Amino acid sequence: MADVYKVRFLPRDRVFPAEPGETLLETAMRSGVHINASCGGNGACGKCRIRIKEGQVDSSPSPVISETDYDAGVRLACRTRPLGDVTVEIPFESQVDRVSLKRRETSPRILSAAALDRLVTDWSVNPSVFKEYVELVPPSAEDNMNDLGRLIRELKKTFPESEVSPDLRVVKKLATTLRGGDWRVTATLDASNGDLGLINLEPGNTVEKHYSIAIDIGTTTVWGQILDLSHCRDVRQAGAQDGSIQSCVLGEAADYNGQISYGEDVISRIMYAQKEGGLDRLKEVICSTINGIIRELFRTGNIDAEFVSHVVLAGNTTMTHLICGVDPKYLMLSPYVPAFNALPPLVARDLGLEVGEHALAYVAPCVASYVGGDIVAGVLASGIFQRDEIALFMDIGTNGEIVVGSKDWLTCTSCSAGPAFEGGGIMFGMRAGNGAIEQVSIDPSTYEPMILTIGRTKPAGICGSGLIDAAAEFFDAGIIDRNGRIRRDLATNRVREGEVGWEYVLAWAEETQIGRDIALTEADLDNLIRAKAAVYAGCRTLLGSVGLTFDDVDKVIIAGGFGRYLNIERAQTIGLLPDVAPEKFVFIGNGSLLGARLMTFSRELLKEAGRIARSMTNIELSSNPSFMNEFMAALFLPHTDDRQFPHVMELDTNSRERNGMHA
Amino acid sequence: MADVYKVRFLPRDRVFPAEPGETLLETAMRSGVHINASCGGNGACGKCRIRIKEGQVDSSPSPVISETDYDAGVRLACRTRPLGDVTVEIPFESQVDRVSLKRRETSPRILSAAALDRLVTDWSVNPSVFKEYVELVPPSAEDNMNDLGRLIRELKKTFPESEVSPDLRVVKKLATTLRGGDWRVTATLDASNGDLGLINLEPGNTVEKHYSIAIDIGTTTVWGQILDLSHCRDVRQAGAQDGSIQSCVLGEAADYNGQISYGEDVISRIMYAQKEGGLDRLKEVICSTINGIIRELFRTGNIDAEFVSHVVLAGNTTMTHLICGVDPKYLMLSPYVPAFNALPPLVARDLGLEVGEHALAYVAPCVASYVGGDIVAGVLASGIFQRDEIALFMDIGTNGEIVVGSKDWLTCTSCSAGPAFEGGGIMFGMRAGNGAIEQVSIDPSTYEPMILTIGRTKPAGICGSGLIDAAAEFFDAGIIDRNGRIRRDLATNRVREGEVGWEYVLAWAEETQIGRDIALTEADLDNLIRAKAAVYAGCRTLLGSVGLTFDDVDKVIIAGGFGRYLNIERAQTIGLLPDVAPEKFVFIGNGSLLGARLMTFSRELLKEAGRIARSMTNIELSSNPSFMNEFMAALFLPHTDDRQFPHVMELDTNSRERNGMHA
Repeated sequence: MADVYKVRFLPRDRVFPAEPGETLLETAMRSGVHINASCGGNGACGKCRIRIKEGQVDSSPSPVISETDYDAGVRLACRTRPLGDVTVEIPFESQVDRVSLKRRETSPRILSAAALDRLVTDWSVNPSVFKEYVELVPPSAEDNMNDLGRLIRELKKTFPESEVSPDLRVVKKLATTLRGGDWRVTATLDASNGDLGLINLEPGNTVEKHYSIAIDIGTTTVWGQILDLSHCRDVRQAGAQDGSIQSCVLGEAADYNGQISYGEDVISRIMYAQKEGGLDRLKEVICSTINGIIRELFRTGNIDAEFVSHVVLAGNTTMTHLICGVDPKYLMLSPYVPAFNALPPLVARDLGLEVGEHALAYVAPCVASYVGGDIVAGVLASGIFQRDEIALFMDIGTNGEIVVGSKDWLTCTSCSAGPAFEGGGIMFGMRAGNGAIEQVSIDPSTYEPMILTIGRTKPAGICGSGLIDAAAEFFDAGIIDRNGRIRRDLATNRVREGEVGWEYVLAWAEETQIGRDIALTEADLDNLIRAKAAVYAGCRTLLGSVGLTFDDVDKVIIAGGFGRYLNIERAQTIGLLPDVAPEKFVFIGNGSLLGARLMTFSRELLKEAGRIARSMTNIELSSNPSFMNEFMAALFLPHTDDRQFPHVMELDTNSRERNGMHA
Repeated sequence: MADVYKVRFLPRDRVFPAEPGETLLETAMRSGVHINASCGGNGACGKCRIRIKEGQVDSSPSPVISETDYDAGVRLACRTRPLGDVTVEIPFESQVDRVSLKRRETSPRILSAAALDRLVTDWSVNPSVFKEYVELVPPSAEDNMNDLGRLIRELKKTFPESEVSPDLRVVKKLATTLRGGDWRVTATLDASNGDLGLINLEPGNTVEKHYSIAIDIGTTTVWGQILDLSHCRDVRQAGAQDGSIQSCVLGEAADYNGQISYGEDVISRIMYAQKEGGLDRLKEVICSTINGIIRELFRTGNIDAEFVSHVVLAGNTTMTHLICGVDPKYLMLSPYVPAFNALPPLVARDLGLEVGEHALAYVAPCVASYVGGDIVAGVLASGIFQRDEIALFMDIGTNGEIVVGSKDWLTCTSCSAGPAFEGGGIMFGMRAGNGAIEQVSIDPSTYEPMILTIGRTKPAGICGSGLIDAAAEFFDAGIIDRNGRIRRDLATNRVREGEVGWEYVLAWAEETQIGRDIALTEADLDNLIRAKAAVYAGCRTLLGSVGLTFDDVDKVIIAGGFGRYLNIERAQTIGLLPDVAPEKFVFIGNGSLLGARLMTFSRELLKEAGRIARSMTNIELSSNPSFMNEFMAALFLPHTDDRQFPHVMELDTNSRERNGMHA
């Protein structure tokens, strides 16, 4: 555990802890302290000059700082990291110290690995596919039972209730393996169905060599982990019910879904699948992506493929159809009927996965055309199915999936938010990759921005979280009104009438990678407002369908890659997230991957996923009049109905007054 | 039903019924009336001259009969068929009319198809793989359950207790099939395991189009039948519990097992499988043979492959291993351990069978290394597992498999008879193909033979049944003594000292296909005696192991192609078959094919086969001292112990006296 240093910002004399490894610019951004910076944090613009008054820092010399200034303690905040407690003077600090007003006690965080592992309780490592070591008595004239019968006879001593059903593949190598192992062998058994499937046999005792792979098939990104099941069992058995199983993760890998070339979103993939050979092509491409990840996992984990007994795949309903080679056509045609929700275990090789011949593939079950196995896995990982409290589970992307419920009931829906949260339909929008503006602060007096990009490189565009930050800051600084309309009368050259209408320039051409001014337009803001309105209205409608409001919600669980960069206060400011106490929010990150992982660990949780999928009631919003009303009402910042956002409205008194919108 | 004509043979004035289509030579042979004939029944030797005294016959003119003789009613018996009751004068009839002495009241017969179908009772057509027609309610906004869930929901109305587990293949075509069939579809379901497997789906109602294939994989010959399951159900449901299901057999085909090129018997096949690529080659070759048969069945039955839902394969343990691609190595090494006895249902395509993708393959379960699925199927077909009476079941070939038991218990053994019964190790031995001498009669006064060949062509060699006939006739005619030694002092040029010792010439070179004298040598007779001794000793030992003798046996069931041509009395004469009343014998022909067929008809009988295989106790003879004693005692004609063959000894008083062996 790295030491946590304190950073004291002058002249306002506010002290904040610095996250390990963080630059002073990042600490300031995170803490709501504004420092002008428009190069995204890469040291190029030289605007984020600060002066170190006290304490040791690590800071590389910069051509934009004179030797005299350097000697006087001047540094670039984006290039400076504290080596102990420091005091920093910000020469151009914002007049309005919003920190004091806005910052609440607890700040929502992505849960630690250990905390994530504690979300689901009362399970042990008991995978559906498992290994059993047996020692057989060699055959003799008195006991010349056939090899298979001999093995099954021994296995039935441990599993007297089960029929053992062997794969022909195992039978083919049976005689050699038994004799090669001197009648001591390790059987791999599949307990997913009534019978115990005998799917592999290895000479000797290989019980300790037992691995699984969890795959999250996102429309954009595919993630995978390789897991040490034997080690995991030891960790859990060591009484560490509250301990992390992170050490069981031997490797993690990710890649873009190769299907992106055939369409950004699920609808365009479904359309492509209707073309001649389209379905086969999409299936082939996603297999290829997954196989690349699997190879990477074998490499990083230094694992031999033959020791992986099963793979769990979790994806949305379209991805689930495509990896199985099933045409998703009717997912997009009313009344939106999947070909299937749940499948029995498959042979992984039959799906095209490059694992051992015996390895099984479990496909996380789906609920409906737009609530897929990724959500079911996420709900599993969140543990809400085990608790009395009422939780709201959200996975926000192009499609926003929402679940509400507790251990007693679960209901879900999905709403089409459009691509804004993933940078789509935004003039300078981009996915959350290197150079994407992910955090924005605006000085409400000068309207100058402070921006941070992913990778701290020169900005190339803006991603979803940057967009939400920007909109919230625009709103707070009075740059836009509650309709998202940009004020035309501001004393700043950043607001201007551009080619497609009024816009705010976040970065000037010379500060960017792309050599053009990066601006947000009113049309961009309108797309964002429609997206956030859809998600918020979806939540309200779903809750309303079970007679609840946000006040009844004990916990809000945000899953998905998007959630990782989401600033709750700013998301509340624009009315994307409901105005509930920040401590109620939990970010679980990639819930789909977490859930898939749990499904590989435990046959009970694998079954639980099936139960969750079957028991979840899906509400269709597309033709729901209540949703349309909610959506219309949410096309305001934060909302038409102020009472739904009391904290936002209270905190924004200043700006609201400035904007003259209190009436 | 053809009329049965009566044939009156003069001068002895004996009347026998003629089988429909039979020649007078065949009637005479079958009835124990001797007519010299050494060309095998093809009209070439001209020895079988007879005179028609009364009645109409169908007889083609022959160059060996003069016009005058023809006008006087002289014909060749081998070329003459009765067209009504006839009276026939045999100019050279044997002095000894053995018919009057030997023929008993009831003559054992191959059972009729209807009689075979009655052997097993209390079953109905209820195949393990079956079809179910369902009509679904199309999806709507109110009920947009996924296609698979909708189908399963409907199926569960009929099968509320079962989980339905779909094949991915079905899921892939589900949406199209359901909509193509306007939500009326026929599901093919597999009830072999706990879950109901959903293995196929067809649009519309195809319940009536449901076929199966039964295959008997013999070491030498492979047989197949294609069966109409839907028709069979109608036949059985029509209350015809005693009726024949022969009309359900839409086609039958057979071919030599292509593996013959790699060895005649199972041991040489097992040896070949040990060579590099040998196992794969044998597997490939047997698949190719079976696929040829399957194609033929589809052609003759005019059946589309896609409507065949399952195949049952029955073969000996070696063949069963080879068709599954499993190395049979340890079958031939002490302690003779099969890799497996029973397998769960397989996908037929995985075995290399050219049937529909969904078709399953059931492999008839084996009992031990030398008691295979063909015997289990035969025992099933014989119905002995259902009856109180004690039955002895025999399948005689290179390997003689013997089962004894009743509905309460079954025990079995196998003995290596050597290849004599299949013509192996016999100087002019051949398999039971065209030109093989299959029936022999010897005139005890002139020692002249009467022979019939398969196909009634010129003889090319002698097959197992011909060999047994010849040995029995030699014994009766006093040509050989009880050791099988040929008498040197007989007044016939047929007995002579040949190149390898003393021999009897069955056919002169000019009467044969091969241009050489076809003779039986003392060495041939010795091989036969060893073979019959092994089978007889096997039966005695097996019975003895459960405290029984032949007197306790209520029925002797002879299965196998060899049995089809076996003359019980002659087999008893040489001591191959026990001396029990002929009416106790039942020939069931290819019991393996019959049993395989029953396994395709009924899931209960399929399960029963498994139960039979598991419950059968196998006695190993190879190291059994009791067997060695029995074997040594049986190396005599008919046996060292006369009391075991009272009827043979009584009937053969004449010859025994002639042979001077009564002392």
